[in-house]
Amino acid sequence: MEKCLAPSILAADFGNLKMQIEAADEAGAGYIHFDVMDGLYVPSISFGLPVLKSIRGITDKLFDVHLMIVDPERYIKDFAEAGADIITVHAEACKHLDATIDLIKECGAMAGVALNPATPIEEITHVLDKVDMVLIMTVNPGFGGQKLIPYTLKKVSDLSKLCEEKGLKLDIEVDGGINTDTIDAALEAGANVIVAGSAVFKGDIRANVEALLEKMK
Amino acid sequence: MEKCLAPSILAADFGNLKMQIEAADEAGAGYIHFDVMDGLYVPSISFGLPVLKSIRGITDKLFDVHLMIVDPERYIKDFAEAGADIITVHAEACKHLDATIDLIKECGAMAGVALNPATPIEEITHVLDKVDMVLIMTVNPGFGGQKLIPYTLKKVSDLSKLCEEKGLKLDIEVDGGINTDTIDAALEAGANVIVAGSAVFKGDIRANVEALLEKMK
Repeated sequence: MEKCLAPSILAADFGNLKMQIEAADEAGAGYIHFDVMDGLYVPSISFGLPVLKSIRGITDKLFDVHLMIVDPERYIKDFAEAGADIITVHAEACKHLDATIDLIKECGAMAGVALNPATPIEEITHVLDKVDMVLIMTVNPGFGGQKLIPYTLKKVSDLSKLCEEKGLKLDIEVDGGINTDTIDAALEAGANVIVAGSAVFKGDIRANVEALLEKMK
Repeated sequence: MEKCLAPSILAADFGNLKMQIEAADEAGAGYIHFDVMDGLYVPSISFGLPVLKSIRGITDKLFDVHLMIVDPERYIKDFAEAGADIITVHAEACKHLDATIDLIKECGAMAGVALNPATPIEEITHVLDKVDMVLIMTVNPGFGGQKLIPYTLKKVSDLSKLCEEKGLKLDIEVDGGINTDTIDAALEAGANVIVAGSAVFKGDIRANVEALLEKMK
């Protein structure tokens, strides 16, 4: 699968989001990762529809929307209409995961399913052939700037092998604690969509993106 | 009570928030109104802590944070630490309103209590002498750009009279559907803190603020 860097604007400067997204875009970001948190599914409230609507027009890159909210099926249509290209829901947050994946596709978006660190990949075995992406959380979701939890990369490599055995071509995304020190291990484990927040937006955005992309060659 | 315009950034361009807040600030905004929605208490997810932390340093004006979230006591400390000067909770969302008001003050912020359109002012009679502000919602919370519900202004005038009878000096804030056509009625009813979103941020921000302030002289 093609490798892709997905800067997470959770770590961006919200006073100057347009400039920051443009810098990441021009430096070679593949997707824009958009972390929606409701303060109930995870212990922080981040941002949602009004922000997405404002910034959607800044770039043509795909918007990769990660819903960390309870009962995510309530907001899938709204996010798709606001311009989300990929919508990822947590398996743990869905009462009816199969139906929720169908709903994402009916709304015209690509469907992703996310797993928290402790959730085994067996949880999603039956839906692997109907999703476009699996997001393996490499930290506990809620905040930027955390350290990668090493055992989560074993899940990435197990999932990667499982997809190969089944002949499935789907993206494997990792999110949390990815920087120039940890990206090699994530890529080696089989991840191809790399979310990075602080490692992109803290400091020189262009230089940060280029340094991560250099590792992804 | 002193009159104050509180532009709501819910209607701002989130790509250029710094410039937009600076324009409103320089044109004479009194507070910056910050609408936090969790998608459960109201039917939209707006923005929260990462956004507040990013923009807090843009202006010295007071940040007037309106929590439209379930169990708001969970996030009061976080918002106070992130720089909220006034924290307003919905009476309807608080299981223990008296304790929640105390918590806001313990965290060093001024305390506001909000009422949805249908909630009678009798709901908050017992806490009137311990809050700094009452927010009378003049639309149903959740979205910008709605029309003011006329009967809510009767609540404003009733509350204003009640405060006068009791000798209480507290701010009365209105939020929803306020523009140059409706602001006179809100002021006449007794509101002194005027939230305006679309009426400030759609079009020429400076001219919009000046037109509203002209009405508030």
